[in-house]
Amino acid sequence: MVRTILVVGAGKSTSYLLNYFLKKSDEENTHINIGDLHPENIPDDFAKHPNCTVFELDIFNEQERKKAISEASIVVSMLPARMHINVAHDCIEFEKHFITASYISDELRALDAAAKEKGLVFMNEIGLDPGIDHMSAMEVIDRIRGAGGKMLLFESFTGGLVAPESDTNLWNYKFTWNPRNVVLAGQGGAAKFIQEGTYKYIPYQKLFRRTEFLEIEDFGSFEVYANRDSLKYREAYGLQDALTLYRGTMRRVGFSKAWQMFVILGMTDDSYTIENSEGMSYREFVNLFLPYSPTDSVELKLRHYLKIDQDDIMWGKLLELNLFDPTKRIPLKNATPAQMLQYILEESWTLKEHEKDMIVMYHKFGYELNGEKKQIDANMVVIGENRTYTAMSKTVGLPVAMATLQILNGKITTPGVQIPINKEVYKPILDELKANGIRFKEYEVPYLGYNPDSVAS
Amino acid sequence: MVRTILVVGAGKSTSYLLNYFLKKSDEENTHINIGDLHPENIPDDFAKHPNCTVFELDIFNEQERKKAISEASIVVSMLPARMHINVAHDCIEFEKHFITASYISDELRALDAAAKEKGLVFMNEIGLDPGIDHMSAMEVIDRIRGAGGKMLLFESFTGGLVAPESDTNLWNYKFTWNPRNVVLAGQGGAAKFIQEGTYKYIPYQKLFRRTEFLEIEDFGSFEVYANRDSLKYREAYGLQDALTLYRGTMRRVGFSKAWQMFVILGMTDDSYTIENSEGMSYREFVNLFLPYSPTDSVELKLRHYLKIDQDDIMWGKLLELNLFDPTKRIPLKNATPAQMLQYILEESWTLKEHEKDMIVMYHKFGYELNGEKKQIDANMVVIGENRTYTAMSKTVGLPVAMATLQILNGKITTPGVQIPINKEVYKPILDELKANGIRFKEYEVPYLGYNPDSVAS
Repeated sequence: MVRTILVVGAGKSTSYLLNYFLKKSDEENTHINIGDLHPENIPDDFAKHPNCTVFELDIFNEQERKKAISEASIVVSMLPARMHINVAHDCIEFEKHFITASYISDELRALDAAAKEKGLVFMNEIGLDPGIDHMSAMEVIDRIRGAGGKMLLFESFTGGLVAPESDTNLWNYKFTWNPRNVVLAGQGGAAKFIQEGTYKYIPYQKLFRRTEFLEIEDFGSFEVYANRDSLKYREAYGLQDALTLYRGTMRRVGFSKAWQMFVILGMTDDSYTIENSEGMSYREFVNLFLPYSPTDSVELKLRHYLKIDQDDIMWGKLLELNLFDPTKRIPLKNATPAQMLQYILEESWTLKEHEKDMIVMYHKFGYELNGEKKQIDANMVVIGENRTYTAMSKTVGLPVAMATLQILNGKITTPGVQIPINKEVYKPILDELKANGIRFKEYEVPYLGYNPDSVAS
Repeated sequence: MVRTILVVGAGKSTSYLLNYFLKKSDEENTHINIGDLHPENIPDDFAKHPNCTVFELDIFNEQERKKAISEASIVVSMLPARMHINVAHDCIEFEKHFITASYISDELRALDAAAKEKGLVFMNEIGLDPGIDHMSAMEVIDRIRGAGGKMLLFESFTGGLVAPESDTNLWNYKFTWNPRNVVLAGQGGAAKFIQEGTYKYIPYQKLFRRTEFLEIEDFGSFEVYANRDSLKYREAYGLQDALTLYRGTMRRVGFSKAWQMFVILGMTDDSYTIENSEGMSYREFVNLFLPYSPTDSVELKLRHYLKIDQDDIMWGKLLELNLFDPTKRIPLKNATPAQMLQYILEESWTLKEHEKDMIVMYHKFGYELNGEKKQIDANMVVIGENRTYTAMSKTVGLPVAMATLQILNGKITTPGVQIPINKEVYKPILDELKANGIRFKEYEVPYLGYNPDSVAS
């Protein structure tokens, strides 16, 4: 009998996910139903495939939603995270397994008992980050523990970047995911982590100046700034006794130092609106954050304010964004500084159709085995094909799709609201990812503990 | 017939207020009822005065509160600002005039129609700042307008500082009011103002680096950092057409640059708690905000992080606070960084019994008269007597007390919820303040417009 996979929400990032499902649809005897608010945006490659049905679905239309879910064999939600909960409730009601790539919300976690009672797998955080990070980390941690080792240190970093062959600007950065999240990164509270048994806190105003450096073979140098909460998975990973826990975001070296200019100027603030934002020139926008002068230029005021020389690469990075152009204008009404900055950045940092993105992930595992301290570093690099088939879409979509078939085929069976940290889940998926070119390289390195020599301040 | 003045809430800052009322009580034929949650704290000088009755009053006990208010001729609330509203409602019910030194809340403003209907004066913001700033500014603005002048610029600054004779530390600062407000100053959103017709915004991370400088005859140099909203009284003062509106807080020169160290470290953050705060040493507290090192000292890490030389006065300011002492401990449980910093600062910055505080206020009025641009600068300095009879208590309490008698005696009669910006109010009170040594000196100075030469960045 044909099994029906319902995919709710099929935005731009679902190309690999849909492709995987359809490629396997004959051998797996599956039909893919895609419910989306804008079905007209779904490419013909998918929409016209014989094993695919596309239909308009407004997730807040209860009748339509319940009908679609009741007819499915399994449900994948690629909706914005806050919308999952409606779908999840119906999955309990109609007894369907449920898969998302998003962080588990408190509301969703509350369905754990109901899911277990009905024997349903509610798999979440099975995209890239969260997702591949969980699986690849637990694979190594379980191996270390299995050999009798004791975890001392865990650091984990991910970055969505531009591939070297498409890296054409001074920032070594282009938007490959939600630009708004990039502009607001690090806001909402101090970053918190543990280094050698001591809690450490970094306020937003220093976040981008407390970077660490990393090397990836064949790909050069990267830097990392701290995520807001590095202790999030301490219990889930069983790392209560580890002395160092640190999670962060990877960028090319020099990005953070330059981004700090926007932070210090106040351009990333999303908490208030600029009254006369509509039609404001880039130059006027910059001048909002500088002292008044009847004579000095915006350029000189900014250089003096941020103490940057005219031949400093920081200055070049600002010029490249046309920040001082009096003719380029921002069309946004009642916009926050963050929204206006995003508009300016998108003009320079949007991928062209042929350009490629790059996903990098880097883990460090420090442990003690037979009285000896050891360390394993592991990293992964995935390069996209173009602006549609991105590395981001691949690394988010493939694990979701693989988990869906594993669950549908009864290979993953443990019920409940969960993340992919158990071997039953991560083993088959990591194996299949490897076959699709998503693989980690591992290195045994000397254990340095938390290495202060690699820390800028 | 004896008139009864009810004073609700008689904290440490009411010494001058109560003294004024009691000194005048015979000639004015008044009796002072003081209702306070802790009547035992009220000094005998007041409590045992024949024209004074002190009683315990819990403002949330409706019966007690209504009884006290119904028996009064007029009501002064010196409670914390959020508690005024309960008293205000009863004043409407029992038809009593009502006076506070606090900012008008939206809830209180909503009583305007009811107060007007019953002919009641609800006078607010009649302390120092807000209060004396409104009155002294409007006196000059009305005079300029009366002569046919047009306002171009208004800047207004106030500071609660330590008097020169008690100024014994490198920060030239001691707490003379609520220390918590000092630690949290500038948080909660970007500072916003207008300079020469252009909106300007300063984020928290730069607030203390965008200071202006001022001189006061016989008292030397001061600096100013911007208040959060300089446009607050634009309509009330009738300054819709002014090109420059700027309000700020005064400190001695060098305070803000040093305070910025705490901002950048993250020590002023009040948004999260430190898990093991109780019993933490000052040194450990500092180290929370610095990178881990197995070898480097907290001192060296901090100097490197903030780029300060060992012989920089900034360094001296930190040493003076015993910040690196491993034996001094913070006793606060689940405290925020801001609470912990406040604890450390209070140890160094608390006034001794004989020490004196100082209030400074500085206004600039730029205007055009007969085609000529002119400027008046006006400033006020008030020095306290000791830790009880402070300049703060004097400048907050006297205008409240004076307004109370003026209203009681039918000299101020315009009803409604208001602030002291009308001549009927400010004229008699400024005259009486002058007789009590609270006076402004005025200087005609060349009009410079907003003067960029006095702006640091």
